[in-house]
Amino acid sequence: MDAKFAPAKRVAGQKQDVWSIVNEAAAASPVQPIVNMGQGFFGYNPPQFIIDAAKSALDRVECNQYSPTKGRPRLKKAIADAYSPFFGRTLNPETEVTITTGANEGMLSAFMGFIEPGDEVIIFEPFFDQYLSNIEMPGGTIRYVPMHPPKDGAERTSSAANWTIDFDELERAFNEKTKMIVLNSPHNPVGKVLNKEELTRIGDLCLKHQVLILSDEVYDRLYYVPFTRMATLSPELAKITITVGSAGKNFYATGWRVGYLIGPPELIKYVAAAHTRICYSSVSPLQEAAAIGFEQADKVGFWDQQITEMKGKVDRFCEVFDELGLPYSIPEGGYFVLANLSKVKLPQGYEFPDHVKDRPRDFQMSWFLIMELGVAAIPPTEFYTDERAHLAEDWMRFAVCKNDDVLEDAKKRLRGLKKYMA
Amino acid sequence: MDAKFAPAKRVAGQKQDVWSIVNEAAAASPVQPIVNMGQGFFGYNPPQFIIDAAKSALDRVECNQYSPTKGRPRLKKAIADAYSPFFGRTLNPETEVTITTGANEGMLSAFMGFIEPGDEVIIFEPFFDQYLSNIEMPGGTIRYVPMHPPKDGAERTSSAANWTIDFDELERAFNEKTKMIVLNSPHNPVGKVLNKEELTRIGDLCLKHQVLILSDEVYDRLYYVPFTRMATLSPELAKITITVGSAGKNFYATGWRVGYLIGPPELIKYVAAAHTRICYSSVSPLQEAAAIGFEQADKVGFWDQQITEMKGKVDRFCEVFDELGLPYSIPEGGYFVLANLSKVKLPQGYEFPDHVKDRPRDFQMSWFLIMELGVAAIPPTEFYTDERAHLAEDWMRFAVCKNDDVLEDAKKRLRGLKKYMA
Repeated sequence: MDAKFAPAKRVAGQKQDVWSIVNEAAAASPVQPIVNMGQGFFGYNPPQFIIDAAKSALDRVECNQYSPTKGRPRLKKAIADAYSPFFGRTLNPETEVTITTGANEGMLSAFMGFIEPGDEVIIFEPFFDQYLSNIEMPGGTIRYVPMHPPKDGAERTSSAANWTIDFDELERAFNEKTKMIVLNSPHNPVGKVLNKEELTRIGDLCLKHQVLILSDEVYDRLYYVPFTRMATLSPELAKITITVGSAGKNFYATGWRVGYLIGPPELIKYVAAAHTRICYSSVSPLQEAAAIGFEQADKVGFWDQQITEMKGKVDRFCEVFDELGLPYSIPEGGYFVLANLSKVKLPQGYEFPDHVKDRPRDFQMSWFLIMELGVAAIPPTEFYTDERAHLAEDWMRFAVCKNDDVLEDAKKRLRGLKKYMA
Repeated sequence: MDAKFAPAKRVAGQKQDVWSIVNEAAAASPVQPIVNMGQGFFGYNPPQFIIDAAKSALDRVECNQYSPTKGRPRLKKAIADAYSPFFGRTLNPETEVTITTGANEGMLSAFMGFIEPGDEVIIFEPFFDQYLSNIEMPGGTIRYVPMHPPKDGAERTSSAANWTIDFDELERAFNEKTKMIVLNSPHNPVGKVLNKEELTRIGDLCLKHQVLILSDEVYDRLYYVPFTRMATLSPELAKITITVGSAGKNFYATGWRVGYLIGPPELIKYVAAAHTRICYSSVSPLQEAAAIGFEQADKVGFWDQQITEMKGKVDRFCEVFDELGLPYSIPEGGYFVLANLSKVKLPQGYEFPDHVKDRPRDFQMSWFLIMELGVAAIPPTEFYTDERAHLAEDWMRFAVCKNDDVLEDAKKRLRGLKKYMA
């Protein structure tokens, strides 16, 4: 094509992403249907009271038309009310909350609102892959800091807490160009919940270097150990922290695209301005439904029930690794399980397609699981830079937010790994 | 606030926008409730078969979870089927259609997909205000070309066709840096439908200068004169044109945030990649409902009915200007009416707030209409550069996509203008 019609560099270099590799493999597998524990979508519907709320919203004229760019007042109020107890003060729904088109676009809005070309943003590896393009879009430069897997991760199962931050390494990533750090707790894919001491040490570094904190807490209703929110640690930290939430994750509706940001007015103002320029406004009827979700969730015991149910799924699924003697990280939050498959030997001479055989071992393992066992899972080196991919090449990410019969099916199939273990 | 926490320049300069000025005035007006003919949202619901489709989608697990980033296959197919007759060939839903989070984010995706810093984009004045930030976000520079109002616009009513392009002026805007031109037909706010000759002349310039065409056709189902789509003029033009559509505008649901882009695979591929980085995916249950909308609309006669109904609203509303002897542009498409209010004299010494009195006459007129008559409308100089604002300062934009009783109420109130006319 004529050079004048060339795409922008930001989209031109399209390395095949993990999602399309896994989906392609799933479609090509001789074992059908595939048990899909790859992408983190729910295998079941939002609770009925929220579905009903969405249906009623569809009957109301104003719920089908543009919402205010910063979100529907009812939803902002419901979120402010739901989060005020965590903050220990009454959040102002008009100035401290803004609604976005999913958490993803919320984070992009935060980067667009604050990052100029040349600014640096610190993120941890493994990272959610969308962070990279979202930081690079406004011209930001990324500094990567690894979370270190447990040293004995190949030998024994232990808490995801054992994925650790080297704080000297972290401090070395800060410099005068550092504008922002991105946290993710509960963490995808590790399942780690940053504890109070870790948050305090990170927060102190940010205060010292005057760096904004973008705290991705989209799994904030799914924690199996005490969960602390960065913004609630101190008034000083609240002033520099934007918290990212997701109604889609909270209410089992990843396709609803309703996210939200909570933070001080002088930060929210600019991310809301960026959001307006990106999406104008967000989906109205599902904002209304999410509002009702936040209003009712506590009363109907939905948050507690959610934790019990998901922890049950984690435990149920991990039984198969216990049986097989394969170690894993026990998640402290979220709905992903990282299992260590170093004991599984890929058969010698096994044929992988070109776009898989040149990737780290976990990509080959993922391909192998799909083709031989009919179970799709995500190779976590996708969430690492090339330099540090070796840290995760023995691990595999399984999403357990699926119906119990799917989990049982997956377990049955994964038992087939036995014959590939020495 | 610490300079280190400064917002990015792209959001820092927040001139108060027309929407917030008008909303603020509406809230402060002594005449309550206001008849709101400002923003272009519908005053009524989508047709029942589409509401019902959305409700059924909410019962299906896969319709509440992530859709593929390029959109739900059923919606892409429905759109390809709906548009193939216009293109005179079968569109490939997998490569020539992609779904976006409203037309707005679709256009941003097109700019992000193709514009590099320094590239130039030509847009016509008046423009849809979001174009500006969306072009500037990837670093584009805007070249403005005016549409000229009818010379006798202050004296007599005539077709919106009489807003004209000076083709010499247009050609002078092209240079070696020009990457893209944005068209909008049917046009907001003018109501002009670009005719075949105008499209051909624009298209020839784009072919000559090798410039991409982004054709914003979100009002494509609302035309009262023959409507031609740029991409259907010739295979050469189809190759360089991305057509923008909106399920929200098509189905009376501006809050649904379902837009779409149609174009050749080698263009769609990159705008889809940009969309993935911006929003990841778009709202699932309402994509499913839109799919059913496109599948059924022809069969139930919805497109024809839509034209008849909206044209009826235009005619019904414009009666008041005929009565008053105020000239207007008769829209050829869309749902906006531009009226010329130069004959209305603002009372001497009338007090305007600071943020209104320094703006052109139409801002003052808009304020006056809200305060004195309780009718909200949009001052069109918001859609002009300062340099050319004088072209439109006698005009006012009224959105007629409202229930008939609202239109009658507006007419009753607007009759009050008589006493301010010489």
